[in-house]
Amino acid sequence: VTLPATILTGTFCDRYLSASAFVAAIVRFEATLAKVGGSLGFIPGEAAQAVEHASQDLAVDLDRIAVEGHRAGTPVVEILRQLRAAVERRRPGAGEFVHFGSTSQDALDTATMMCLKPCVQRAAACLDDARKAAVRLARQHASTPMLARTLMQPAGITTFGFKAAQWAAALARSEKRVIVAAGSALAVQLAGPLGSGLAFGERWLELQRELARELQLSAGPDLSWQSMRDAAANLFLQLGLATSVADKIATDVALLTQGEVGEAHEPSADDGVSSAMPHKRNPVICMRIRACAHVVRGLTATVLETTTGEHERGLGSWQAELAAAPLLVSYSVGALESLLALLEGLRFDAGRAENNVAKAIDAIAGGAARPPTFDRERAVKAAASAAEKILAEGGTDR
Amino acid sequence: VTLPATILTGTFCDRYLSASAFVAAIVRFEATLAKVGGSLGFIPGEAAQAVEHASQDLAVDLDRIAVEGHRAGTPVVEILRQLRAAVERRRPGAGEFVHFGSTSQDALDTATMMCLKPCVQRAAACLDDARKAAVRLARQHASTPMLARTLMQPAGITTFGFKAAQWAAALARSEKRVIVAAGSALAVQLAGPLGSGLAFGERWLELQRELARELQLSAGPDLSWQSMRDAAANLFLQLGLATSVADKIATDVALLTQGEVGEAHEPSADDGVSSAMPHKRNPVICMRIRACAHVVRGLTATVLETTTGEHERGLGSWQAELAAAPLLVSYSVGALESLLALLEGLRFDAGRAENNVAKAIDAIAGGAARPPTFDRERAVKAAASAAEKILAEGGTDR
Amino acid sequence: VTLPATILTGTFCDRYLSASAFVAAIVRFEATLAKVGGSLGFIPGEAAQAVEHASQDLAVDLDRIAVEGHRAGTPVVEILRQLRAAVERRRPGAGEFVHFGSTSQDALDTATMMCLKPCVQRAAACLDDARKAAVRLARQHASTPMLARTLMQPAGITTFGFKAAQWAAALARSEKRVIVAAGSALAVQLAGPLGSGLAFGERWLELQRELARELQLSAGPDLSWQSMRDAAANLFLQLGLATSVADKIATDVALLTQGEVGEAHEPSADDGVSSAMPHKRNPVICMRIRACAHVVRGLTATVLETTTGEHERGLGSWQAELAAAPLLVSYSVGALESLLALLEGLRFDAGRAENNVAKAIDAIAGGAARPPTFDRERAVKAAASAAEKILAEGGTDR
Amino acid sequence: VTLPATILTGTFCDRYLSASAFVAAIVRFEATLAKVGGSLGFIPGEAAQAVEHASQDLAVDLDRIAVEGHRAGTPVVEILRQLRAAVERRRPGAGEFVHFGSTSQDALDTATMMCLKPCVQRAAACLDDARKAAVRLARQHASTPMLARTLMQPAGITTFGFKAAQWAAALARSEKRVIVAAGSALAVQLAGPLGSGLAFGERWLELQRELARELQLSAGPDLSWQSMRDAAANLFLQLGLATSVADKIATDVALLTQGEVGEAHEPSADDGVSSAMPHKRNPVICMRIRACAHVVRGLTATVLETTTGEHERGLGSWQAELAAAPLLVSYSVGALESLLALLEGLRFDAGRAENNVAKAIDAIAGGAARPPTFDRERAVKAAASAAEKILAEGGTDR
Repeated sequence: VTLPATILTGTFCDRYLSASAFVAAIVRFEATLAKVGGSLGFIPGEAAQAVEHASQDLAVDLDRIAVEGHRAGTPVVEILRQLRAAVERRRPGAGEFVHFGSTSQDALDTATMMCLKPCVQRAAACLDDARKAAVRLARQHASTPMLARTLMQPAGITTFGFKAAQWAAALARSEKRVIVAAGSALAVQLAGPLGSGLAFGERWLELQRELARELQLSAGPDLSWQSMRDAAANLFLQLGLATSVADKIATDVALLTQGEVGEAHEPSADDGVSSAMPHKRNPVICMRIRACAHVVRGLTATVLETTTGEHERGLGSWQAELAAAPLLVSYSVGALESLLALLEGLRFDAGRAENNVAKAIDAIAGGAARPPTFDRERAVKAAASAAEKILAEGGTDR
Repeated sequence: VTLPATILTGTFCDRYLSASAFVAAIVRFEATLAKVGGSLGFIPGEAAQAVEHASQDLAVDLDRIAVEGHRAGTPVVEILRQLRAAVERRRPGAGEFVHFGSTSQDALDTATMMCLKPCVQRAAACLDDARKAAVRLARQHASTPMLARTLMQPAGITTFGFKAAQWAAALARSEKRVIVAAGSALAVQLAGPLGSGLAFGERWLELQRELARELQLSAGPDLSWQSMRDAAANLFLQLGLATSVADKIATDVALLTQGEVGEAHEPSADDGVSSAMPHKRNPVICMRIRACAHVVRGLTATVLETTTGEHERGLGSWQAELAAAPLLVSYSVGALESLLALLEGLRFDAGRAENNVAKAIDAIAGGAARPPTFDRERAVKAAASAAEKILAEGGTDR
Repeated sequence: VTLPATILTGTFCDRYLSASAFVAAIVRFEATLAKVGGSLGFIPGEAAQAVEHASQDLAVDLDRIAVEGHRAGTPVVEILRQLRAAVERRRPGAGEFVHFGSTSQDALDTATMMCLKPCVQRAAACLDDARKAAVRLARQHASTPMLARTLMQPAGITTFGFKAAQWAAALARSEKRVIVAAGSALAVQLAGPLGSGLAFGERWLELQRELARELQLSAGPDLSWQSMRDAAANLFLQLGLATSVADKIATDVALLTQGEVGEAHEPSADDGVSSAMPHKRNPVICMRIRACAHVVRGLTATVLETTTGEHERGLGSWQAELAAAPLLVSYSVGALESLLALLEGLRFDAGRAENNVAKAIDAIAGGAARPPTFDRERAVKAAASAAEKILAEGGTDR
Repeated sequence: VTLPATILTGTFCDRYLSASAFVAAIVRFEATLAKVGGSLGFIPGEAAQAVEHASQDLAVDLDRIAVEGHRAGTPVVEILRQLRAAVERRRPGAGEFVHFGSTSQDALDTATMMCLKPCVQRAAACLDDARKAAVRLARQHASTPMLARTLMQPAGITTFGFKAAQWAAALARSEKRVIVAAGSALAVQLAGPLGSGLAFGERWLELQRELARELQLSAGPDLSWQSMRDAAANLFLQLGLATSVADKIATDVALLTQGEVGEAHEPSADDGVSSAMPHKRNPVICMRIRACAHVVRGLTATVLETTTGEHERGLGSWQAELAAAPLLVSYSVGALESLLALLEGLRFDAGRAENNVAKAIDAIAGGAARPPTFDRERAVKAAASAAEKILAEGGTDR
């Protein structure tokens, strides 16, 4: 199902979240575990070197991993078989030190976080740049009047700058929450088959910390998070929330791009061409954001459900999390990349906005007194001042 | 994210739901539309033939379709460009007849249903065979006593046959609901850019029916279902419900395979080997079913949300449905294939079941009178009779 | 949390789904079970009469039921205690015949369906009347031109009649699906503590059928549906889907009521007054529909999750279904009642629609040739003809 | 639908989240706004006093608020009508100062947070006390061996103390996340009809801060959060996540209370009595937790969806959030209160645990070498040491 996904998400995450990238991450986990284990004296230095070297030029058999992985319910057994065979070819007897003290879940959880990390960083970077773009719009249109619309009806006069400033503030909060959650969640797992570090003895934490350092992950929400998945789930929830914030902004923009409203336009005049209606320009960036958000919300429900796994390692729940998380992250990154493109290139048509304000006032004037929300001078001043205050708050306008 | 998905779902759907299969389905839609259009006089016969021939040996450029598809928000524009160029090479002037009267959504909806159809049929076939396997278990163990457990506590005596008969009945209902829903949902879409068949004139329905016949799809829940997605959504909900029924059965089995219970065993003694604990046999089939079900439930939430798209074609909702549906279907098929394997090979240990009954009675006997639910003879007879009645009901035991 | 719920849902379901209605339904279940049991010879006729009479003037202590119910995890134990005491007061020795052969779940499932039935019927009736109202709009505006809008952009000319006809068709399908699902789901549960009808013997089905007849429920998706909840879940999913169809229609209408569009108006000029902006008319009916739909979708996820309960009676899943279902149903009824009000009173402004068409054509005219989707005569004719065909299809226009 | 809810949730939240409590909170919002407005010179001091006094002895007509609220889509208009009439009776001319500069959403959002605050605090307190109870279990059973179970199969030896320590750590993290989220979300809303503080002028923030101080709420995630709901949504997501953590713990305990396992027992021997099987003790506390978690997860999906409302105030989304949030919070508090009861009274049967370990070893011994995960001495030492490290980490064992 690659194609429709790519159309919505773009290709950024593909290189990190492909099957081969995932297997490579598992191999790298094993090689690094061996390296660190060798240097800390857990396994013989020669064995460690053999594992490192063998892993570097290992040509994995992906098809076999897929078939055996389905049968075994985990790809790790077959990957280890292939890796151990390669190690044995290099140094007979060294194969047994591969994966020492570890368990499938250590490899799978760590490899998942290794693969997700650049994607989550991309998400955070998009949130940051999207916030900056929103701040620029807020400054540029600080006093540009437009209709405020509540319950989808014209309600009075606001400024586009105030609207953009509120977007910026929500993006600042979202970014902060994603980064805090990622700090706990993007962690190594190294706890052995029972989560208790059984085979690692006194120097478990040292081993874990070294491994984390080598793999540039944190050392965990806990020294073992095999069975308590809340920190990982929180990262996915925060991405889900950030994506829904993007959805809200895209919805606002899409409403403004409607033919009858015409106040906003997506960046490029060439995108969004229809196959049947060449005259038409579809707001495809908004479409991509909203579509990704629908998918992300569903998967957010999945990862919340999967926090409830049984005992020391769940039956189905944890594995579903591993399957759902990369999908969720890639749709989330897709939404946030598109949000960035939207906000960086958004064109606001102040003339149309002015015109819509005038028409709304006309629509009232046929009978009623003009309500204070349509007092142009005061309303613009209030909105401009409110925007200023929001931008001045910590985090929004760095 | 291929690997973890395949581990849970197996590979059945891959051939139907890959990017190249999807593009091929779009090309086949266009070729068949031309063919049918030619034979009904919508387009010149020579042009129709040129489209058919060109489509047969078209070497599509998938990478370009992905890139342009992301930009345009749809792959169809680029696919049409490639197809038209090939048609023009065969027969100058014929390119304009490609896609005649149609719109992107016609191609995308129809191609999606073409791709999903064999997968949905596989789901229904698995439900049917799983039901038969459950009926066999019900017959074989009609009077095999075991503990009934309510709120996860021993509650009295039932038979494994009664339990299996209830599974069978739910599978029979699920299959029926999936088939009914599929009958409406696996339909062609051919309604043109506005859903009104604008360019097709008087013979629209004839054209639609011929196209449906050629593509072996139904003629739609309606002559246009571009904007009202309820029939498609209902199919996905029914697959979600059937998958949750599979999850319930897998949960029952998994509880029976617990070491302390030991009443059921998954088919193969070789599967489910642990990477760290060779002595252990994990119920990996149950795991796969439950994991798939977690993912399917999340995506069910997505497709329910996406029924609410705006006006004649939604902005983001419809496109998310196209992305979520193949994922949902492939996880659903994965769950149901595993359910079939589980029920066909399930081994029930009547001795352990008997032993657990005896121990539960002992646990009560320390003080209280034996409750009627533990009256062995009556309880077994009641359960056996109840099983018989369920199996005799329409649909369960065909 | 009564107030905000009522604001969105109205009060129709309150009388059926209140705590006292629910307890009354449980008491009525017990009384009817005794009556039927008496007439079929399961219990002495005098005891049966005592139960019937005692139940008629039983003044239940709701507070105590709530407190004891929380402790016991079920209200039935305390209700039975109160009912038995009353029966004993009437006829010493008759108390033991109350609830004979039955179990808490029998009472709770049956009472839930007794309470839900008039609400589900109301939902179906609203779907039916809303469909009729949509058909009337379709007839009335068969050839009234308006903009077709795809991806939220003007795409060409359609008619309001065609739009309304598509709504009608989806409502017809939704109603049919709800009614089919309700036929299985609105059933008695009478299966005893293990689901096997243990205490009822040979005449179990007869007893069940008589009880069903008396309570005007069906006899079940199965002779015991204690542990397989798919039929009930399907009803809730269908209500979820019907509510999302209502949401889609409300979204279309809300977009048409936007100040800049102005093509549709909600029925009453007096509703939807703002507390701060007296000039403003909010589309509150659309608001209520969409708000209810958000809540219903979440609860749909809950009832799908709860189908997976363990063994003969789940721990938490089934109980959550009992809690979520009445909420889901009442929000669903709320949405569908509002949909009916919306469609019965909807005012379509053909002049504004015409004007918007003209402006959209002007917007194109600035350079490009008028695309065929804006060929007024052909587009209106096609849409009118498409509407006619939809209305003629089975079910839409009865 | 009061009764089943109370059975699962208990009654703590009822007093805060009833219709009358909600209306009282709105009245208190208006009174406090008047008071603060009077003292800051926004409205005449006499008018402010009249509002304060009138609000103190206002006998609201709840039924009328419900009826009018449904019609208007908000209860605020009718509440204001009643309040203004009472103010006018006290001081003619003062009625117009009620609600000065404010809008329905200000009253509804602030009142919602006023009502939710004690409930959220209760949730946090339960998380805190549940954590302490888990820490006590962890200390008490630091070296009590039990089976570790992965994929629902015996995997080796751990200690109950280690299991409890992991629960404690997850509860500590959950509490922290809830508190951080609540700090932003439990805020006043005071931004006027357009969110820009239009009528409040230069001293808007001062007025907002004073109001927040009086109502003991924070001053907002932003000076206006009418349209950007992410901070509120995050609180509900965090409660959803905390509730799912409770669900995970309850699932572990429920599995341990199974008859065949028998390692854990819920506190009271009197609770959980069955209506049909007096010999049986159901783990009703676990049931309540898991049931509440199912409902909470569905509502979490709702509040995530509702973050995407249109422009300055959404049509349906925001209102659904107001309806779903109190339900979500009350089910969440219900789950966490039950979790506290569970952990405070949990009895662990070390003898049964020991026995299960022995049997698992026997089951292996029939052929294979005892795997290292069953090396009793090392496994217990590792688990005890791991528990110690977790408890020593920041936050877990304060």
